[in-house]
Amino acid sequence: MSLEVKDDEIDIVVAAIHSDLTSFMNEWRPIFSRFHLIIVKDPDLKEELKIPEGFNLDVYKKSDIDRVVGSSTSILFSGYSCRYFGYLVSRKKYIISVDDDCLPARENDGFLVDAVAQHITNLTTPATPFFFNTLYDPYCEGADFVRGYPFSLRSGVKCALSCGLWLNLADHDAPTQALKPGHRNSRYVDAVLTVPARALAPISGINIAFDREVVGPAMLPALRLAGEGKFRWETMEDIWSGMCVKVICDHLGLGVKTGLPYVWRNDRGDAIASLKKEWEGVKLMEEVVPFFQSVRLPRTATTAEDCVVEVANAVKEQLGSTDPVFARAAGAMLDWVKLWKSVGSSASS
Amino acid sequence: MSLEVKDDEIDIVVAAIHSDLTSFMNEWRPIFSRFHLIIVKDPDLKEELKIPEGFNLDVYKKSDIDRVVGSSTSILFSGYSCRYFGYLVSRKKYIISVDDDCLPARENDGFLVDAVAQHITNLTTPATPFFFNTLYDPYCEGADFVRGYPFSLRSGVKCALSCGLWLNLADHDAPTQALKPGHRNSRYVDAVLTVPARALAPISGINIAFDREVVGPAMLPALRLAGEGKFRWETMEDIWSGMCVKVICDHLGLGVKTGLPYVWRNDRGDAIASLKKEWEGVKLMEEVVPFFQSVRLPRTATTAEDCVVEVANAVKEQLGSTDPVFARAAGAMLDWVKLWKSVGSSASS
Repeated sequence: MSLEVKDDEIDIVVAAIHSDLTSFMNEWRPIFSRFHLIIVKDPDLKEELKIPEGFNLDVYKKSDIDRVVGSSTSILFSGYSCRYFGYLVSRKKYIISVDDDCLPARENDGFLVDAVAQHITNLTTPATPFFFNTLYDPYCEGADFVRGYPFSLRSGVKCALSCGLWLNLADHDAPTQALKPGHRNSRYVDAVLTVPARALAPISGINIAFDREVVGPAMLPALRLAGEGKFRWETMEDIWSGMCVKVICDHLGLGVKTGLPYVWRNDRGDAIASLKKEWEGVKLMEEVVPFFQSVRLPRTATTAEDCVVEVANAVKEQLGSTDPVFARAAGAMLDWVKLWKSVGSSASS
Repeated sequence: MSLEVKDDEIDIVVAAIHSDLTSFMNEWRPIFSRFHLIIVKDPDLKEELKIPEGFNLDVYKKSDIDRVVGSSTSILFSGYSCRYFGYLVSRKKYIISVDDDCLPARENDGFLVDAVAQHITNLTTPATPFFFNTLYDPYCEGADFVRGYPFSLRSGVKCALSCGLWLNLADHDAPTQALKPGHRNSRYVDAVLTVPARALAPISGINIAFDREVVGPAMLPALRLAGEGKFRWETMEDIWSGMCVKVICDHLGLGVKTGLPYVWRNDRGDAIASLKKEWEGVKLMEEVVPFFQSVRLPRTATTAEDCVVEVANAVKEQLGSTDPVFARAAGAMLDWVKLWKSVGSSASS
């Protein structure tokens, strides 16, 4: 792992959607045990959490969320969105978050993938959003810039977000999952790349890391589907948040990387039963994408907080009348920025 | 290989920079022997070509170039640029071009990479330039679109250009090669991806394929360095042509893919001796990139020919005064379009 990052600059955030974290924690032990963990229990989850011994961790439950957030907010921290509470209360520079149905992947040669080390490498080496390097991340070991890559762009920019990938159960939507129930992802692509500036991507929250000091406020729970459930394919919160953070990174001149590290996603859930719920998200995307492709932020927006407020106002203005879900998302984004500032200042005082 | 493409719809174009093609042709025999080859001899090359038996091919020499092109053009077909003469005289839908110092690569499992089949797969499956798919080309076997990918964009667009990569000697510029003389690329990345719209990339001509009917006129010899030599790192013709074709594909709603197939590039040349020449290209890129990032083509430009004329006029206007190399490039582009039309119409009549 990058030498300049100390273990205590990292928080691992786990959204506990399941009560029994025993095998999850034990499988991740060789990788996670050096770090501080923040476990946020889904407030809808009734059972007690089962967490094995031997970790340095804090657990947050519904009562903690209520105490910190209070009742004066439109933000819901239930389901997958509970992880955002972990982002809020963390005081570390880097956050790494992995869904609780994911285990460490193995490389082609059988070695366990150290997802933390790879995410930190991605975040601490520059990103190159302004020109695409055909041999992938030029900062990876053994790589470099190819002929024709402009020298003035080779220093790159700060990388704010690292999106990892998934072996076994890929991150498909419910229609694709229902259409291809036996489909599994076995392609291990040994690459990291910067998503070019002005290109949007479906950023998944399953296996993700970011520089909290730089883009933390833009990693937010905002879009909640009416029928949002407890399977990934029933959520859009991360896709929405991902489009916000990409647009904000483009505006602030920050980079977003995708590729390594992989995690191993276990099978669960009945995609066919989720189909009805998912179509809502599928339809919303057709409104959402043109909006994010065209939204431009003013030069006066120079921090992630500023940018979130600008995006929220544009959402309200341009999408607010098309579907009530968008007006609610805009409201949640504004509430989130207030919350981020108040929780941040109360902690530092 | 894609079932809908017949062998006689493909031309393999080889620029013969070296006179002895024996080992090149023999190594490629299992892959190339089904197809028609166009071999264009570098007009600067004095020795007779050595080509083994058993191929269906046409060889073009200086006398053929002079006969077809005549003297009323500013285009020079010497060095690596001789391959463009092959693009001009081909009558096939697809062109595949590989440098004569490249051999077939082997996959991780030892199997020979069929570069032709992979390029044709890339060209005959849609490209997705308007939204980035994090699991790479969704049309690759075993792949699909990920959650959050808008359904309205899943049909993709026509892929016009496929850029393959290089194992062993990577395609670095002379400064990088001189700085890291022992550096070799051994990272086999099992992926194809679409370069997003509005993102530029350094497109190398070493291992490339394209739909000649759609973007043939935009694959052109235009930028020639004063000290251009016979090593790849001493040329910029393909980088310039690559930026033209990318801007034109973006304008016409066509896709550009990069990734598989790999070829194996053999070592040759003295990078340190090339350093003096290369800096010219390195400096020019600093002018060229902002130009191509900002150039916009009018809606009236609806064919590759139209677009080349528009780009050439913009080059003349915006870059013409900064360096004489750009005025010459613009002139060559306009001459190329005329030549493309006249050679095309003379062949079809």
